[in-house]
Amino acid sequence: MSVKPPKDINIVPFVNVDNMMKLVLDVGIETFLTELAVYIEEDFKRWELFDKAARVASHSAEGVIELMPTSDGEVYGFKYVNGHPKNTRDGLQTVTGFGVLSSVDNGYPVLFSEMTILTALRTAATSAVAAKYLAPKGADCMAIIGNGAQSEFQAMAFKAILGIEKLRLFDIDADATDKCIRNLQGKGFDITCCDTAEAAVEGAQIITTVTADKQYATILTDNMVGSGIHINAVGGDCPGKTELHKDILLRSDIFVEYPPQTRIEGEIQQLADDYPVIELWRVIAGEQTGRNGERQTTLFDSVGFATEDFSALRYVRSKLAGTNFYDSLDMLADPDDPRDLFGMVLRAADAA
Amino acid sequence: MSVKPPKDINIVPFVNVDNMMKLVLDVGIETFLTELAVYIEEDFKRWELFDKAARVASHSAEGVIELMPTSDGEVYGFKYVNGHPKNTRDGLQTVTGFGVLSSVDNGYPVLFSEMTILTALRTAATSAVAAKYLAPKGADCMAIIGNGAQSEFQAMAFKAILGIEKLRLFDIDADATDKCIRNLQGKGFDITCCDTAEAAVEGAQIITTVTADKQYATILTDNMVGSGIHINAVGGDCPGKTELHKDILLRSDIFVEYPPQTRIEGEIQQLADDYPVIELWRVIAGEQTGRNGERQTTLFDSVGFATEDFSALRYVRSKLAGTNFYDSLDMLADPDDPRDLFGMVLRAADAA
Repeated sequence: MSVKPPKDINIVPFVNVDNMMKLVLDVGIETFLTELAVYIEEDFKRWELFDKAARVASHSAEGVIELMPTSDGEVYGFKYVNGHPKNTRDGLQTVTGFGVLSSVDNGYPVLFSEMTILTALRTAATSAVAAKYLAPKGADCMAIIGNGAQSEFQAMAFKAILGIEKLRLFDIDADATDKCIRNLQGKGFDITCCDTAEAAVEGAQIITTVTADKQYATILTDNMVGSGIHINAVGGDCPGKTELHKDILLRSDIFVEYPPQTRIEGEIQQLADDYPVIELWRVIAGEQTGRNGERQTTLFDSVGFATEDFSALRYVRSKLAGTNFYDSLDMLADPDDPRDLFGMVLRAADAA
Repeated sequence: MSVKPPKDINIVPFVNVDNMMKLVLDVGIETFLTELAVYIEEDFKRWELFDKAARVASHSAEGVIELMPTSDGEVYGFKYVNGHPKNTRDGLQTVTGFGVLSSVDNGYPVLFSEMTILTALRTAATSAVAAKYLAPKGADCMAIIGNGAQSEFQAMAFKAILGIEKLRLFDIDADATDKCIRNLQGKGFDITCCDTAEAAVEGAQIITTVTADKQYATILTDNMVGSGIHINAVGGDCPGKTELHKDILLRSDIFVEYPPQTRIEGEIQQLADDYPVIELWRVIAGEQTGRNGERQTTLFDSVGFATEDFSALRYVRSKLAGTNFYDSLDMLADPDDPRDLFGMVLRAADAA
């Protein structure tokens, strides 16, 4: 005999783009990034609990569409995300996404959310979490090379989580830098606009590379990176897309999210498959050392992993209660008798 | 310089449960199944075009959550689906789902749809397509063992596509059979209610097994299946869940959707990994023979494959134009300048 299911279990809260923006602004961008970083750190600490796999990618000539599932045994989450570098040319986003959280116990979704904005936030928050463990002590200046869609999020996350207020910006497109400066106005930054990448890295203890071209590029060459620097390499994130000269990799300690995925997608695709890397979660969990001294060059080879999206969805879900920043979607068929799906369809005719 | 993207590219049509029911009824259930079967056949015929992979499953003690992606090079699709046999006990669906179609060219979703009802329809339509090629000539009677949520859909698809009007029903739960008979009343069937599975298969040229328990069950034993029969084995569709005695498999010609997936999930999980099976698409494409004579026992070991969901979403998309059977979801962030995602968030404050 079947029991009555919880009321409205067929209804899934949906955070659309407009509501995500309202939620972020309501919470405050810096607070949002700071709280999100706590969720990301928490999930890195319980890394071994998660069901992990490299993302499931469908590649085409113009880009990639990926599914990124994971589960902590109680909650399941996945993100749909595309990466199409040529989209910008057509007035579209390079990366868009959406995601879902579900109950592992019964498989029913419990949250559906836009993730274009949320991915930008979680990527920046993850970079800042990594830098918390890897950047040199007292770092107060960050170079950002590539001033596109992700750049301001990186700046805000490093300010919120590490207190970095000095920025040195460079982009091959001066309009991008202008846009970045405009957006960060009044947010408490001291910004220097630079004419070259070489100029941008001068005096910066943290170098963030976040360019968008899908190609093997060399945004940073070996002579540009002094010892003791932390490199936050965000832009090299799919096969055939890297930003750093191989020599930089060879003299850095390299920290990664999930090695099987990063070896395919990250800067380390330039290195042998067994080149030693350190899993970021081990540093966060206290199992391995992050920065070991002033002269060490650290590199966070960020590609973005499913657990970070899971953390982001989990955080958003926690913030929705008591707000109206979501719509209710009738996503799941819910006949009175679960065996009577067909009867439910038939009876829809009577209801109409 | 970026160009203006197509208007409303950020808006994705969403077919919720209510609209799916309305669409199905508006088209007519038999017409819907018949037209859907055409899409399924079309996609089986161009099988080699598709980017195929076994579904990505996250297993737990109580069930499984799966993602089923595929692409024909122009359109990408995936389905989220769960399978939780114990859900029925809690008044919930065993299987629920939703799916998305996207443009491969730019990665933007173009359709989001409920797929609990749609999966039931595509599973039945696929069974009927397989039977079109595999059932004995002149078959006019089908046994349905297991009269749960999928049973009426199977009955309707076999009537619409093969003209089968005689049904012999059996379920260990007589209430399920009663429900099935009630739902099929007035639909043009000649129904016999049977007390045992043995009685149900008497005189039937097609045997459909569609039970729900997650276990190695033996719904059919070898002596129950005469020669010349077509078995449509729908219920055995995940590791540890089978319906047929192994001896039946050993004397049948076995037809499957995607062997790497069926060997894990289907009836043939009982057989060696290299046991010969025939890919259904080759029969539909005319590359291999389906039924070769009157004495052959054929078995369609159905587990459900991503291309069938793709066909179903493609079909639903084709039917939406000019209707109001969908809502418009603001799923994708769409700043005027694609590099200005952060600015878009900031400006949402002014708009509010």
